Amino acid sequence: MNRESRALSGMRPTGPLHLGHYFGVLKNWLDLQENAQAYFFVADWHAMTSDFADTSGIRRNIVEMVKDWVAVGLEPDKCVIFRQSAVKETAELSLLLSMVTPVSWLERNPTYKEQQQQISSKDLGNVGFLCYPVLMAADILIYRPYGVPVGEDQLPHLELTREIARRFNSCYGQTFPEPQALLTLAAKCPGLDGRKMSKSYGNSIFLSDNFADIRGKVRGMFTDQTRLRKTDPGNPDVCNLFSYHVLLTDDQTRADIREGCATATLGCVDCKKIFLKNLKAFLLPIQERRAKLTERPGAVEEIFAAGNESARTFACVTMDDVRQKMGL
Amino acid sequence: MNRESRALSGMRPTGPLHLGHYFGVLKNWLDLQENAQAYFFVADWHAMTSDFADTSGIRRNIVEMVKDWVAVGLEPDKCVIFRQSAVKETAELSLLLSMVTPVSWLERNPTYKEQQQQISSKDLGNVGFLCYPVLMAADILIYRPYGVPVGEDQLPHLELTREIARRFNSCYGQTFPEPQALLTLAAKCPGLDGRKMSKSYGNSIFLSDNFADIRGKVRGMFTDQTRLRKTDPGNPDVCNLFSYHVLLTDDQTRADIREGCATATLGCVDCKKIFLKNLKAFLLPIQERRAKLTERPGAVEEIFAAGNESARTFACVTMDDVRQKMGL
Repeated sequence: MNRESRALSGMRPTGPLHLGHYFGVLKNWLDLQENAQAYFFVADWHAMTSDFADTSGIRRNIVEMVKDWVAVGLEPDKCVIFRQSAVKETAELSLLLSMVTPVSWLERNPTYKEQQQQISSKDLGNVGFLCYPVLMAADILIYRPYGVPVGEDQLPHLELTREIARRFNSCYGQTFPEPQALLTLAAKCPGLDGRKMSKSYGNSIFLSDNFADIRGKVRGMFTDQTRLRKTDPGNPDVCNLFSYHVLLTDDQTRADIREGCATATLGCVDCKKIFLKNLKAFLLPIQERRAKLTERPGAVEEIFAAGNESARTFACVTMDDVRQKMGL
Repeated sequence: MNRESRALSGMRPTGPLHLGHYFGVLKNWLDLQENAQAYFFVADWHAMTSDFADTSGIRRNIVEMVKDWVAVGLEPDKCVIFRQSAVKETAELSLLLSMVTPVSWLERNPTYKEQQQQISSKDLGNVGFLCYPVLMAADILIYRPYGVPVGEDQLPHLELTREIARRFNSCYGQTFPEPQALLTLAAKCPGLDGRKMSKSYGNSIFLSDNFADIRGKVRGMFTDQTRLRKTDPGNPDVCNLFSYHVLLTDDQTRADIREGCATATLGCVDCKKIFLKNLKAFLLPIQERRAKLTERPGAVEEIFAAGNESARTFACVTMDDVRQKMGL
């Protein structure tokens, strides 16, 4: 990949972003904006595939999420930030791709089966949920990217996009290059309670949390649950807190922490103090950039205005070709 | 229904139109253009749901079909003639409606099951074919029509559109009036061989057939198959040819024919001559209008330019409301 290669990624606007998003996705996006022609989109249509019943918060979530993006360092001058639903051509391509996609490909999608079995709190029997891999293929293919950053769990989705591209190409002639998987190793960033960090588990540190809240959250964080007293030696390798030191603490300090924990000379309370200091230092510039952006009313709308236009222009070129190839 | 009520109907561009189209659909459209705000569209996206594998003829079919429409008497000044794929907002609405439509509603669609079982020559396992009732709902609802002309066999489709409208309204607030079924009694217009008139059976008289071809076709038409000799009395009620007299011959002459056939004083050859004369008289003005339209290059494009614009303007108003209601 080089600076000329296009890369594309999107995120659903489901709420404020937390450390898990940062270390799992956004950190990688920061690399991409430096090393590729990066397109990042707010997947507002996708948010509806599984949450159509309550869309009341979506408008606010969209704005807040873009603020988080810019706060962590995405720069609208270096990448294209746009809104999925602003590019209607994507809906058109999704419709056209649905013509060449067998229903069986969607039914065998592992996420589809899994989520239908496991999530009982939402209605996932809707057509939008079944068909979201087709929409996702349209999202991607319309920008003809070189690659798409994916975690290992998303590989089946990207493979489906590649299959749909192949099918289209074989029906109507070479139109879509098959996008490469840009495998990202997600850093381990568990929630406060050791489970996956997730808004719905109430175990998250949000990028926009105020420091008083953060102090309280860190105080209640799980550490090595087998270490009951300060005088017991701890095991950093099973300690929830230590995962964060891996992410945010410099090597020397981290070595000292490991030693102090294992020899019972450093207690969890003091260990948390070090973490809190580092976390604040990490979040401070992020929150400053966020505050600056919030001061300027209409800042997010401006970012969208430019990004949507740029994305649409590109999408229209692809669609002219697609319609031509399909004989429309 | 009155002149202010909107009515909407579409047709797939699958080839030249024949008498079956005229008496089954177009005759009704001619009434609608006088008695409603009529919107007629070329369903080019729908043509792809079942024929994605070969789309080579679609562009030509679109132009020829609109020529047939105008030839039979549709007037762009009295109705809106447009192309489905020219209104991208329909693809967007289809996507949004897919969020509220259960997959089970599509799976139980009788046409879906029937065609999957009966048609083996085409690949009907694609997502587009499963989801076409959602696209159809979008086609209809985006124009918020009072009614849709349907034959009895299409009632389940319209009911599905009404159900989708109800579901959307109950999720996001009253947005789409439920379109009424404007039941049309399809006149019986069998093919030359007595089966349903259909291009694929090779038993059609096309509106644009030249008169030499028509003469040959009429000569080979089935009549009452139990009447072997001219001296045998015939039975007009089971005679294929007589169905056409019902459509094209005046009452007095038809009464004479019935009598002559039943008393064996009128033979099939002479009976066909009467039909041929009446058919020519019927087709002549149609073919003259067609010829006039064909003389003017770009005539169909002009019709589309005005109609597409008019349809899009309306669709955009609906979509502003839809996005607002969904919180997008």
